[in-house]
Amino acid sequence: MSRPIILGVVGDSATGKTTLTRGIVRLLGNDRVARVCLDDYHRHDRRQRRALGITPLHPECNYMDVMAQHLRLLRGGEAILKPAYRHADGTFGPPVYLEPAPFVIVEGLLGYSSEELRDCFDVRVYLDPPESLRRRWKVARDCSRRGYTTSEVLEELDRREPDAVAHIRPQRHDADVVVRFGAPPGEDESDAVHLDAHLLLRPELPHPDLSDVVGESHERLTLTAAGGEQDLLVPGRLEPATALELEERIWQHMHFASHLRSERLGEFTLGTELMRSDSLAIVQLLVLYHLVTARAKVEAGGPEAATRL
Amino acid sequence: MSRPIILGVVGDSATGKTTLTRGIVRLLGNDRVARVCLDDYHRHDRRQRRALGITPLHPECNYMDVMAQHLRLLRGGEAILKPAYRHADGTFGPPVYLEPAPFVIVEGLLGYSSEELRDCFDVRVYLDPPESLRRRWKVARDCSRRGYTTSEVLEELDRREPDAVAHIRPQRHDADVVVRFGAPPGEDESDAVHLDAHLLLRPELPHPDLSDVVGESHERLTLTAAGGEQDLLVPGRLEPATALELEERIWQHMHFASHLRSERLGEFTLGTELMRSDSLAIVQLLVLYHLVTARAKVEAGGPEAATRL
Repeated sequence: MSRPIILGVVGDSATGKTTLTRGIVRLLGNDRVARVCLDDYHRHDRRQRRALGITPLHPECNYMDVMAQHLRLLRGGEAILKPAYRHADGTFGPPVYLEPAPFVIVEGLLGYSSEELRDCFDVRVYLDPPESLRRRWKVARDCSRRGYTTSEVLEELDRREPDAVAHIRPQRHDADVVVRFGAPPGEDESDAVHLDAHLLLRPELPHPDLSDVVGESHERLTLTAAGGEQDLLVPGRLEPATALELEERIWQHMHFASHLRSERLGEFTLGTELMRSDSLAIVQLLVLYHLVTARAKVEAGGPEAATRL
Repeated sequence: MSRPIILGVVGDSATGKTTLTRGIVRLLGNDRVARVCLDDYHRHDRRQRRALGITPLHPECNYMDVMAQHLRLLRGGEAILKPAYRHADGTFGPPVYLEPAPFVIVEGLLGYSSEELRDCFDVRVYLDPPESLRRRWKVARDCSRRGYTTSEVLEELDRREPDAVAHIRPQRHDADVVVRFGAPPGEDESDAVHLDAHLLLRPELPHPDLSDVVGESHERLTLTAAGGEQDLLVPGRLEPATALELEERIWQHMHFASHLRSERLGEFTLGTELMRSDSLAIVQLLVLYHLVTARAKVEAGGPEAATRL
């Protein structure tokens, strides 16, 4: 087996990391993806963190060297014995034996905080929603699924803010793709269901050319370029013809992966309701494009097989 | 820091692995030794093993590849996140961050069961007491410190016997030093306090020459050689002058480690009583000799720095 392709999805707590990756995993197939959540590399359990007055956002609260070591081992085709942090009660469970797969998808808070870590990834995504939106998401999730009260979550967010500024947000500069989901202009954040996606596409990865699709569209879809970076705005709701055209264009760039086209992208949950977002689908498709392109290059051999693309 | 020197102490359950290493660690100094117990690499906890009908002596009951990976990483100077099996209740605790030290001492059931594992060690010791003696030791320990009843321990020994035959005892052939503690001739195993040590010294490691000390002695101390292997019998109790002479001779071979000479070797506990055994002291000293010799060679650089001595 040629080496795994490693995707990083980094962002602060409740920025939508799992929502983004879920659709990608579904397309690639569960058996072709090994998943790593970097929260498993916490050095202290919840009780210890409280006693020490340290937040999980601080590198010293995590085994940063082991994190990089395990990604390096997976990249080299070796299985790892991964620690297992349980969000349900904030303690550690028995370690988990994880074998490498053609794709390794890594979600975490601090994935790009050292050069050694950054070099582990083939594709680096950073999720960067506005703070006000992230706070809503975090309250909703931690109260419903992690057993906290609203005031506990808000207090925790305040307690974490200095570490978020110092250690999380600077990683925005180390991503190939920065994604900012947000309410469309004029819509209130608390009501908006279909969020716009603002994408910053850095030139280190060659992105598919979408300029003519965007140029033909009469919607808010825009693409601008400056200093080698491209800025793509994808509205949360597109005309079906535009959405189809855009998706079609990206699929054309990865015709070798056309067997993956059966499932729908863009799904997310709002409470218990399953919804769909055109902008989420496009973001997922772009990330998928980079993954299957990297995979194809590695399988063809050549210098990309061993180094960052 | 030059790479750690790795000692293996392998043998079935209750063969005296920890008794042997305790004195060596005391001489080297706790801060200069990283300790690994390979029981931590069990794949299943006690309840799962019972449900599966598998014993911890079977390679399939252990993460054999991760075991070798972690020893290789330590040997390369990297810290590991070691799983932690708790004998007290047969479950796994939070993983433990273990940094390499000048010496790594590894105790385990299956340390020499693959070439990849065997190659991790600089010095390989195998403990091989007579089965009747081992059964006594196991009952005494597991009843007093692991919460079992005598009949549970005896049943477990019977259940494990086929795996011991298939997977543990063949490792005797892969050691540099095989140690067999046993009752002196004519003494009953249940009464004997000072056990003889029969040592098989294989030629892969250059052992210190003890022939003239042995030749001058009028005690049961003997040394025979056949096919490159040496066979050394050290009685559990020697005349003080002979014991001193023998120890002195080994220390002469490691004059560069003379700063270690302050503490006493050979201590062991019988129930709650602290005892001393001349034969245990000599075995520990021989192992120590090989460790500090390997350390000196590695620190001097040269080809031994990277490969097995």
